[in-house]
Amino acid sequence: MSSKKNSKKYSKKEYSDLGLGVKETSGVYRTLNKDGTFNVRKTNIPFLERINFFHSLVSMPWPRFLGIILLGYFVINTLFASIYMAIGIENLTGMKQVGGTFEQFMEAFFFSAQTITTLGYGRVAPLGLLANIVAATESMLGLLAFALATGMLYGRFSKPKATVKFSEHAVIAPYHEMNGFMFRVVNVQENQLLEVEVTVSISLRRDNSQLRDFFSLDLERSKVVFLPSVWTVVHPISETSPLHAFTPEDLEERDAEFIITMKAFDESFSQTVYSRTSYKPAEIQWGQKFVYLVAYENDKIAIDIERLDETYEAPLNS
Amino acid sequence: MSSKKNSKKYSKKEYSDLGLGVKETSGVYRTLNKDGTFNVRKTNIPFLERINFFHSLVSMPWPRFLGIILLGYFVINTLFASIYMAIGIENLTGMKQVGGTFEQFMEAFFFSAQTITTLGYGRVAPLGLLANIVAATESMLGLLAFALATGMLYGRFSKPKATVKFSEHAVIAPYHEMNGFMFRVVNVQENQLLEVEVTVSISLRRDNSQLRDFFSLDLERSKVVFLPSVWTVVHPISETSPLHAFTPEDLEERDAEFIITMKAFDESFSQTVYSRTSYKPAEIQWGQKFVYLVAYENDKIAIDIERLDETYEAPLNS
Amino acid sequence: MSSKKNSKKYSKKEYSDLGLGVKETSGVYRTLNKDGTFNVRKTNIPFLERINFFHSLVSMPWPRFLGIILLGYFVINTLFASIYMAIGIENLTGMKQVGGTFEQFMEAFFFSAQTITTLGYGRVAPLGLLANIVAATESMLGLLAFALATGMLYGRFSKPKATVKFSEHAVIAPYHEMNGFMFRVVNVQENQLLEVEVTVSISLRRDNSQLRDFFSLDLERSKVVFLPSVWTVVHPISETSPLHAFTPEDLEERDAEFIITMKAFDESFSQTVYSRTSYKPAEIQWGQKFVYLVAYENDKIAIDIERLDETYEAPLNS
Amino acid sequence: MSSKKNSKKYSKKEYSDLGLGVKETSGVYRTLNKDGTFNVRKTNIPFLERINFFHSLVSMPWPRFLGIILLGYFVINTLFASIYMAIGIENLTGMKQVGGTFEQFMEAFFFSAQTITTLGYGRVAPLGLLANIVAATESMLGLLAFALATGMLYGRFSKPKATVKFSEHAVIAPYHEMNGFMFRVVNVQENQLLEVEVTVSISLRRDNSQLRDFFSLDLERSKVVFLPSVWTVVHPISETSPLHAFTPEDLEERDAEFIITMKAFDESFSQTVYSRTSYKPAEIQWGQKFVYLVAYENDKIAIDIERLDETYEAPLNS
Repeated sequence: MSSKKNSKKYSKKEYSDLGLGVKETSGVYRTLNKDGTFNVRKTNIPFLERINFFHSLVSMPWPRFLGIILLGYFVINTLFASIYMAIGIENLTGMKQVGGTFEQFMEAFFFSAQTITTLGYGRVAPLGLLANIVAATESMLGLLAFALATGMLYGRFSKPKATVKFSEHAVIAPYHEMNGFMFRVVNVQENQLLEVEVTVSISLRRDNSQLRDFFSLDLERSKVVFLPSVWTVVHPISETSPLHAFTPEDLEERDAEFIITMKAFDESFSQTVYSRTSYKPAEIQWGQKFVYLVAYENDKIAIDIERLDETYEAPLNS
Repeated sequence: MSSKKNSKKYSKKEYSDLGLGVKETSGVYRTLNKDGTFNVRKTNIPFLERINFFHSLVSMPWPRFLGIILLGYFVINTLFASIYMAIGIENLTGMKQVGGTFEQFMEAFFFSAQTITTLGYGRVAPLGLLANIVAATESMLGLLAFALATGMLYGRFSKPKATVKFSEHAVIAPYHEMNGFMFRVVNVQENQLLEVEVTVSISLRRDNSQLRDFFSLDLERSKVVFLPSVWTVVHPISETSPLHAFTPEDLEERDAEFIITMKAFDESFSQTVYSRTSYKPAEIQWGQKFVYLVAYENDKIAIDIERLDETYEAPLNS
Repeated sequence: MSSKKNSKKYSKKEYSDLGLGVKETSGVYRTLNKDGTFNVRKTNIPFLERINFFHSLVSMPWPRFLGIILLGYFVINTLFASIYMAIGIENLTGMKQVGGTFEQFMEAFFFSAQTITTLGYGRVAPLGLLANIVAATESMLGLLAFALATGMLYGRFSKPKATVKFSEHAVIAPYHEMNGFMFRVVNVQENQLLEVEVTVSISLRRDNSQLRDFFSLDLERSKVVFLPSVWTVVHPISETSPLHAFTPEDLEERDAEFIITMKAFDESFSQTVYSRTSYKPAEIQWGQKFVYLVAYENDKIAIDIERLDETYEAPLNS
Repeated sequence: MSSKKNSKKYSKKEYSDLGLGVKETSGVYRTLNKDGTFNVRKTNIPFLERINFFHSLVSMPWPRFLGIILLGYFVINTLFASIYMAIGIENLTGMKQVGGTFEQFMEAFFFSAQTITTLGYGRVAPLGLLANIVAATESMLGLLAFALATGMLYGRFSKPKATVKFSEHAVIAPYHEMNGFMFRVVNVQENQLLEVEVTVSISLRRDNSQLRDFFSLDLERSKVVFLPSVWTVVHPISETSPLHAFTPEDLEERDAEFIITMKAFDESFSQTVYSRTSYKPAEIQWGQKFVYLVAYENDKIAIDIERLDETYEAPLNS
């Protein structure tokens, strides 16, 4: 028996290939957060290796992103304004010669803004070699800089994001002659998700130990061609399931974590998108079944998303 | 028998993994429309979860898209014109001081347009701190806004769309010693489609019941390396086919729906594209065979698309 | 025997899934041209279904593409110039009032050019409602139009194109205890090709018939992880090969065509690229072996591409 | 035995499909450099076939790329300045008529810069047919040229690059009842890598020969769903391993090279990325085991990257 258990421990089939490599735990914890982010922190990475401007700019929240662009715009113009001041304000035509240094600086600042955006009203224009060199350089840099900024802006805007919604909780419900672990997923948006694949894994603390094992769970079906409506993902708890004969207490005691990953092709973005979520024992309802969502209204199939988590009593098979 | 039927009902092999999850039906209906859109409506989705600006802007019809851009352009300029008016028209040089408020507003409006497009004739130009701040901001926002608008425009333009054409109707025709369900597909454009994969599924209402079963149908071949000419997709109706021994009446009575999905790599877009269609009993011709399309003109293979749906009488094998 | 032959004729394994669907031929012909284009023409396709501007603009030769852009630029400016003339030249400030209609038209033309490119010198600028409306519209359309033009330009520039070179001819050479059909392929550029997959198929005219059969040929290996050097693709002519016991005359008489497709991931474009070629009997050398290309220069592996087609005598196994 | 050895030599299973095709070697060498580049040089490639501007511009170092853009900007403006001089400086309004040819040339140069960037202050503006034609052409070319430049700039910026770090050395460590070849890999950045696949191959010089064989090594697991933490890749040295019963001396004497390739989907770039590295005998530590990196800090998993290469003594199983 135990040898079999050992051999099982290393068999590819049962190992969930999650790349977590986590064996030793401090007891109760969560690997994958509900929102799909990981509960992992890496330390002592050299800054230059760690940093990735593109990734940061693409994934930071909108306010910060726009703030950075505005700030950069302000800083660069201040910089160039100072240069024009240093060259000498008399090298800019059409400046109001009245007013003190501040007024002149502001004029230089706005001239810089008109140059870097290639707006170029021309009320103020550069005169002489130096001012012209700076202006010619600035306008070219402006084109490059705004290409990056607007490229990032569009990159953020057109970045496909997961549009699926998982049921807040999973259930253990009767399934044919046995029981099954079930959760639901729906695409809340209008874009079509195609070739949708789901993997379900479970992480269990070993009895009387701090070691963790990862098992992948077989599914009734793990792939659908498209996902126009609701999909109830089912892991049949058969004799071969690592969950076989588990009680709610077992899940608690072994600090189980169900780790869900979903892969799909988003037709409107023509790109592959991924979603992740996880369920802890507290988020699993025993002896409950999901209500049937699909209704028919004048020959259209209608799905009421609000009822995604709705369940009804359903005595488990023993 | 019935137990076998049950077991079949849940066997992965027979279940078509369509992610439709539709079991209960109001009788006759169509899941997948002829144009590949789904007959599904989702309700009670929170607005913020439902909405996807990118998806909407990419998939809305051209007139609406261009209308939105024009409207936005008009609204934003009106907005900024009002701001310039509020700041005081005297802060814009070169304005014709003649004319009433409307003329001045229009001048401000056009100045705004010249600023947001970074056109900047300069006949009218901002004077003083406030006007300059607004203009500098507007020109920068203009660059960002137009980056989005033009990005979307190009995104729409370069979005790969299915270029295949399915035969309007399918046929049940003799196929070797048995019969086969057949339809044809052709790529009507010049771009090459590569690694073309087809899946065919059927949805049947269970006898004396409102439940539906989905079966995937085996194909003579389900993938071709490329699709330069016409492809006749064939499901051989063997003993193992869910359609075995079906009559036209059976299809009608069980409200059959053939659901077709096609996946391909579009060489000119370097992207994967998908197409979908479906056939209802009324769109299936029994005892008809598709005519042979391929002709030879001075050593070139010629395909006459107009004859895609042409068939001839062909007595079925019993 | 013959029954076996028949069954073989329809077995998926032997059918090469090329999507050619060509059965009846006018004798000698070539399906796939040496450059990978197809020898297929489609007729009677409704214009709107056939045309795909993006595809055309991406694949047309450079001179025509640039010609179209220049022409469009000229036409649009002529159009707007006419509008400005119609509105009345006096609505453009700074025009030289001297000169006849032609001079004025040219001024309007160049003003239009300065507007559509958002150049806006401002020497000439619009005055009054109408002229301003046209100018504001033109500058916005200019931004959109140039976004498309430059997008296409960049799309063409960044479009991955096959960078592999196939040997001009294939060989039938001794291979272990049997013989093999072999050709060579090399990536002539610096970009890395990864996960390179090859499929080889043969199209044969049936004996005493005009029908054609397509067979896919098993390869010594059909996929390599990367392709830094030369790859000799080998089809071992074993007892199970459709080519078994063929003579050069057989290939001629059955008008054989070897159809090669290659798929790879181009690391510098981060995209999948495809190449195709074909070999007719005249392009196959019997009893020849490709010379060994790989040399070593101060610990670097050196490949002499010029010798890609070099072979030496090698008596075939019988 | 030897026959078995031969058959093995050609069996697909053992052959590592690396596309290296290297059989004959000058003894000790390295196929794949530590940084993932190949030790291969191709000669005699026609220039037009070899060159790929996009690839070069995307992969050249930043300073050279920016240098090329600056140089191009300078050259083009010089060119157009000369044209304006040729046409006659009097065709540009607002030029300071004072100053010699150089001053005038510089004015023309800066006017060109203001035109090509569509800046267009208008202090200097073209007059007459010729100057206007040149200016109109230049501004259009400017838009196209900068579209390419900025497109390349953004292409470089948004190009996904491998973000994984392999352990500097590999180890041969005890693994269950046998030993295993192990190395570690970690994603040093915040972006998620999904569906991470690894292949490990070994290149060995044949005994008493200059020929090389390539073998692919079976892995404990070759794919993980995601890689939030550290992954220790393990090749169990079982009886069937080509490394079975090898000593450090054997590796040296047969000039072994372990070739590692990794494929993953980068979620932030929505693209597939590849990494490569290799280990030579000198980079392999025998009887060492990697220390366990994963720690727990207030319920977060913490990975100390600095210790990626840290090992401890671990006597090998014999």
